[in-house]
Amino acid sequence: MNPESVLEVTERTKLQRRPNRGHYDRDTLYSILDEGMVCHLGFAAHGQTFVVPTAYGRSGDRLFVHGSAASRMMKTLAQGVDVCLTVTLLDGLVLARSAFHHSVNYRSAMVFGRATVVDENEKYEALRLFMEQVTPGRWDVTRPPTSQELKGTTVLALPIEEASAKIRTGPPIDDPDDMGLSVWAGVIPVAVRAGAPIEDGSSGLVAPVYKRYAT
Amino acid sequence: MNPESVLEVTERTKLQRRPNRGHYDRDTLYSILDEGMVCHLGFAAHGQTFVVPTAYGRSGDRLFVHGSAASRMMKTLAQGVDVCLTVTLLDGLVLARSAFHHSVNYRSAMVFGRATVVDENEKYEALRLFMEQVTPGRWDVTRPPTSQELKGTTVLALPIEEASAKIRTGPPIDDPDDMGLSVWAGVIPVAVRAGAPIEDGSSGLVAPVYKRYAT
Repeated sequence: MNPESVLEVTERTKLQRRPNRGHYDRDTLYSILDEGMVCHLGFAAHGQTFVVPTAYGRSGDRLFVHGSAASRMMKTLAQGVDVCLTVTLLDGLVLARSAFHHSVNYRSAMVFGRATVVDENEKYEALRLFMEQVTPGRWDVTRPPTSQELKGTTVLALPIEEASAKIRTGPPIDDPDDMGLSVWAGVIPVAVRAGAPIEDGSSGLVAPVYKRYAT
Repeated sequence: MNPESVLEVTERTKLQRRPNRGHYDRDTLYSILDEGMVCHLGFAAHGQTFVVPTAYGRSGDRLFVHGSAASRMMKTLAQGVDVCLTVTLLDGLVLARSAFHHSVNYRSAMVFGRATVVDENEKYEALRLFMEQVTPGRWDVTRPPTSQELKGTTVLALPIEEASAKIRTGPPIDDPDDMGLSVWAGVIPVAVRAGAPIEDGSSGLVAPVYKRYAT
């Protein structure tokens, strides 16, 4: 799959509001999906919408989520219901001269589709990818999953076929008449940062580097 | 409403997995809701689940979201459909000695219910609250919304009546047999941090303090 390819815009992914903020190319989608670590997974169960935060990983043109085989969410999703998986990166608070034009800078990705259960062979590799994306090299030093642990874990794959990204960047956009007001205007950047590692016990080993967030 | 009161556990809010991580008291729920700034709002439209990131505010036992009166989401929600509003705060990566026991520390809140449109009188006050919660004192110095801007904005209120919080804290929990493995284990804390303000223009004024996130 060519990462520069552009996805078809569908009824579900077409941005109704501010279409200039919409992006449908895989490059943009993947850059957002690869920076986030928690997604919000929406699905209906018994007629009720649930939005559940969960970790995820990407491999090629698929997203993976995992969980206990006994969980309500995994059992529901395994049935192939329609889901909406959303990843949001908050980048800044946009403070305008008028109350009305306040906004936030963000990058979000929304993926629609149906997840499928990955088979036993692929499950191990998917779980390895999960860890390697966050802490490269860690899989080789941790105790690998036992067959029982694997059996108790369900891994689902969601194809990135119907998806859109939405991005706002830059300064506030005030009305021309408001530009002379004596009000501080601009952007306060925000980002997820990693703090100092807190070791459990005292192994004398070096803490692994967590790649996604700057320290 | 007594903030120490505990919400009734319902079929929708009962934690199926790891019930010891569940909390149903308003104190806990409010502390999570007041720290987050972006929620993920889930709802069904034309049989499809959508999960949309949006800013929100809390006043007493209600949450407020706002948006263009022309937006698909606001029009759908104004009809009184069932929603699930989820706020997630990622606190740390939990690195265990075994691959299986890796986890994340987080605090999340999930609110179920139906939103109602606030009337014109309350709309102004709700928008003021939005801004005051993030940047106290700012409402008084920015240009207030015109009647046309107010007309183009819909504010919805969602009662916090049926809700649950889920929290994981602390170090990894490894199997006793794995404790002797030569693997760094512990928590890498993560948090949203504010960076240096970027002014639009050069007013000579002092940038407002953004309270929710530490710098």
